Amino acid sequence: MNIVIIGLGIIGGSFCKAFKLYTDHHIIGINRTSEVAEQALREGAIDEIGTADSLQKADVVFLCMYPQACIDYIEKHGSKIKNGAIVTDSSGIKRAICPKLKELSLKYGFVFVGSHPMAGKEKNGFAVSEAELYKGASFIITPCGADQKYVDVLAQLALSIGFGQIKITTPEEHDRMIAFTSQLPHVLACAYVMSPSCKNHKGFSAGSYRDVSRVANINSKLWSELFLENREPLIDELDILVENIGKIVDAVKENDKEKLTALLEEGHKVKQLLGE
Amino acid sequence: MNIVIIGLGIIGGSFCKAFKLYTDHHIIGINRTSEVAEQALREGAIDEIGTADSLQKADVVFLCMYPQACIDYIEKHGSKIKNGAIVTDSSGIKRAICPKLKELSLKYGFVFVGSHPMAGKEKNGFAVSEAELYKGASFIITPCGADQKYVDVLAQLALSIGFGQIKITTPEEHDRMIAFTSQLPHVLACAYVMSPSCKNHKGFSAGSYRDVSRVANINSKLWSELFLENREPLIDELDILVENIGKIVDAVKENDKEKLTALLEEGHKVKQLLGE
Repeated sequence: MNIVIIGLGIIGGSFCKAFKLYTDHHIIGINRTSEVAEQALREGAIDEIGTADSLQKADVVFLCMYPQACIDYIEKHGSKIKNGAIVTDSSGIKRAICPKLKELSLKYGFVFVGSHPMAGKEKNGFAVSEAELYKGASFIITPCGADQKYVDVLAQLALSIGFGQIKITTPEEHDRMIAFTSQLPHVLACAYVMSPSCKNHKGFSAGSYRDVSRVANINSKLWSELFLENREPLIDELDILVENIGKIVDAVKENDKEKLTALLEEGHKVKQLLGE
Repeated sequence: MNIVIIGLGIIGGSFCKAFKLYTDHHIIGINRTSEVAEQALREGAIDEIGTADSLQKADVVFLCMYPQACIDYIEKHGSKIKNGAIVTDSSGIKRAICPKLKELSLKYGFVFVGSHPMAGKEKNGFAVSEAELYKGASFIITPCGADQKYVDVLAQLALSIGFGQIKITTPEEHDRMIAFTSQLPHVLACAYVMSPSCKNHKGFSAGSYRDVSRVANINSKLWSELFLENREPLIDELDILVENIGKIVDAVKENDKEKLTALLEEGHKVKQLLGE
């Protein structure tokens, strides 16, 4: 198959490298800045550098740009995509993206299947992309009405490059869960490192600090877009979190050991039940 | 030297295994339940199983029990320790422990030097202890007035078993920093997993979830003791954290992209300045 990957950052770059490592598909990379595309070609991460016209020969298109940029690109170039080709995004939000791309798919005759690869790093860009990024990760698919055969093609592609599981869901459930699993930790990490104590942590810190603060090294432009496009579920989770932190704060302030132990035990129990 | 290690959980057990792997010191292990001590002996983690009377031949004593239990043990058995022997604790809090152990050292003639090995796991007990636990970690020492030569002995011991750095500080600075680097992440992790969404996270989660939630698998009895013995610094950090989360919550609720981006950028900048 001819696979076109648009946006060669950590996500798109890792798709390229993984497809080249694990499959024989022909990989066409498109990137806004040509230096990165040339580097990808030199490193063998892609078979050719494409332009919007390359969409004509695509069997599958992976959009690996900022959410709004995915829509803008397809609005502009969607007519070039051939009938029956599969287009998928890789956005961390779905309700704000999928309906628009679905609409464009009906207008232009391609097949839209939403997806979200559950992997990343606290750094961005092609330089940190890698063929093994997706190893064992979950590949979330939001079919948005696409025929099962197209969903199967995308799922098989994901499994062929190392993803460990496929999760089929709706944009609504996706966004609700992502608010908890991904967005909340990013809020927490940023709020955490804002403490004046943070700059002096070295020598006093270990794994707890490292893990909670890791994703504070955030792409603030991307994540503020993701947060605001997913406001309602994120606000729900933030309100729950603030309430639960408040319970622990109260127990500490009241010096109530029994209450505090019971609250911490709740956390312990959740992890135990999940087998983590 | 004869080194007596009291309490063969993850911390004490790892000290035993590390001393056996890296040094030729004679290691005596004391544990409340004899099965664990026997297991440690069988596995070669200690040279002999000790009793309180073993304190008479100790050159260095590591107290690896719950904070209050360290004090209780030395109050009961401190008279057995020989003059000039070094006693150190390994408690995660210092103001509540060091002055009492210092007082007992003056009463009984041993030398007290506080310490806190900055390593651990989200699991407890001898079964998860390991010789490499301290590799590269920071060993915090609170001299509490002990002569430099004793501090040096303890520091050299720590470096000999793999610690990567020694941090000399006061109980006050230790407790203030630990509230941020260690206690706050434990509060956050527990509050985080209390969300009803947590039980459904599988398939929707990746590194962010894993890292923030890791330490929620908490020893609630130990940590509630640690929190309450360090209330003031912990409350200060909790208040700062709640305020900073509040700023992000407000920006999301107000749909203020500029404000939100600026807040996230603060987090990003802190990590960048720290080179993390």
